[in-house]
Amino acid sequence: MNNMTELHPNERMDDLCMGGRRIIQRTDEFCFSMDAVLLAHFPRLTGRERVLDLGTGAGVIPLLIADHTAGITAVELNSVQAELAVRNVRLNHLTEKITVREGDYRDPPALFACAQYDVVFSNPPYRLVTSGAISMGARAAARHELTATLADTVQAAAYALRHGGRLAMVHLPERLGEIVLALAAVKLAIKRLRMVQPRVDRPPNLVLIEAVKGAALAGMRHEPALIVRDAEGHYTEEIRSIYGQEM
Amino acid sequence: MNNMTELHPNERMDDLCMGGRRIIQRTDEFCFSMDAVLLAHFPRLTGRERVLDLGTGAGVIPLLIADHTAGITAVELNSVQAELAVRNVRLNHLTEKITVREGDYRDPPALFACAQYDVVFSNPPYRLVTSGAISMGARAAARHELTATLADTVQAAAYALRHGGRLAMVHLPERLGEIVLALAAVKLAIKRLRMVQPRVDRPPNLVLIEAVKGAALAGMRHEPALIVRDAEGHYTEEIRSIYGQEM
Repeated sequence: MNNMTELHPNERMDDLCMGGRRIIQRTDEFCFSMDAVLLAHFPRLTGRERVLDLGTGAGVIPLLIADHTAGITAVELNSVQAELAVRNVRLNHLTEKITVREGDYRDPPALFACAQYDVVFSNPPYRLVTSGAISMGARAAARHELTATLADTVQAAAYALRHGGRLAMVHLPERLGEIVLALAAVKLAIKRLRMVQPRVDRPPNLVLIEAVKGAALAGMRHEPALIVRDAEGHYTEEIRSIYGQEM
Repeated sequence: MNNMTELHPNERMDDLCMGGRRIIQRTDEFCFSMDAVLLAHFPRLTGRERVLDLGTGAGVIPLLIADHTAGITAVELNSVQAELAVRNVRLNHLTEKITVREGDYRDPPALFACAQYDVVFSNPPYRLVTSGAISMGARAAARHELTATLADTVQAAAYALRHGGRLAMVHLPERLGEIVLALAAVKLAIKRLRMVQPRVDRPPNLVLIEAVKGAALAGMRHEPALIVRDAEGHYTEEIRSIYGQEM
């Protein structure tokens, strides 16, 4: 297309509320949700980190964190999504900061360097293939472990991270036991954890974790549950601050 | 003593707020705190369960749950505490329901039967011996892993539980990673978990778990964080209900 902002009929453009930063997504592909935004804000970044995003989709996490990193490698298996990510990087003038690579992170050496990254982000497929009905079409792989299992994801992260580097991941609380064991198998240990509850009186439906490569298992630092909506159903101040703030 | 309710100078008696049930404790030994009360209320009991309490202290958990079980074996290493537990059982007329055994649960066959219990309770020493200053005197073993480590505790529980039986444990959230791995090593998996936060904006300082023997790792059910005090510093309705209710 001549005009970078021109949209195909099955595309939508959203404002990321960060000084004009925008994202194009396909309505027939997986579109990012609150999970990605909460994950992007979870690890502390100083601007010096070399970052890898495993399964970047249309590139939402790199777009949200770009200004706070030294550079980002964003990998995506789905070629439609990878192309969108490339367009989104150009659209936001971030080609110097973000490199998109299309490929399968179950074969890490083909996609990124070993032990070169300070932080790896992962908003992986949450659900076991055996669990419930699989959503139809191209979005299935983003939600179910069709193309990458939890073990695949943490192995790719362990390959990419330097010793002491951090994996930031969002996942389902119900899989926390499996997550701890999968991480331990590749010498990663959760050092920071935050549950996300839709409301103060509802169980958590997401867990945000930060795991450190080579760290001891003891000493998991917990944060207060992040409450999404107040008793009236409005977003809490913390959620509004995450969505409104320029990172 | 002739009078069951007569106290030595270093003893105190507290009302358990359960229709007159009382507990004698020693001021120079470990006295129960909120941890034990929250743990006692955590697992659902039907009245048919054969229960084991690992490290019963002066017997607080058996006293709190006695009416909702088929019978309880309460084991305690510290002879002063074990004697107090015996006195408390008599004081509350629960000798038919609760059997106190003095001994070291690191040698389970000497103390209780294998695979005969439906529910095991454990409010174990929380802290690694290497962590921080060790409190002085007889109370140290109740707080630090001087006499039983996490691995010892879950091994004793796994020995006692029937297949499908439950371990109810309260512990430090910072040790959750170690807990998951120690449980997995003895074929126990956390199926229910609840964080306890002192206030809604404070990190959890306790975690309540229920682990099932022989269960799959997938499917950890989380509950909303239990908030102890409201913004004004008063106990929340849920805490008041736990303390006030007849179990």
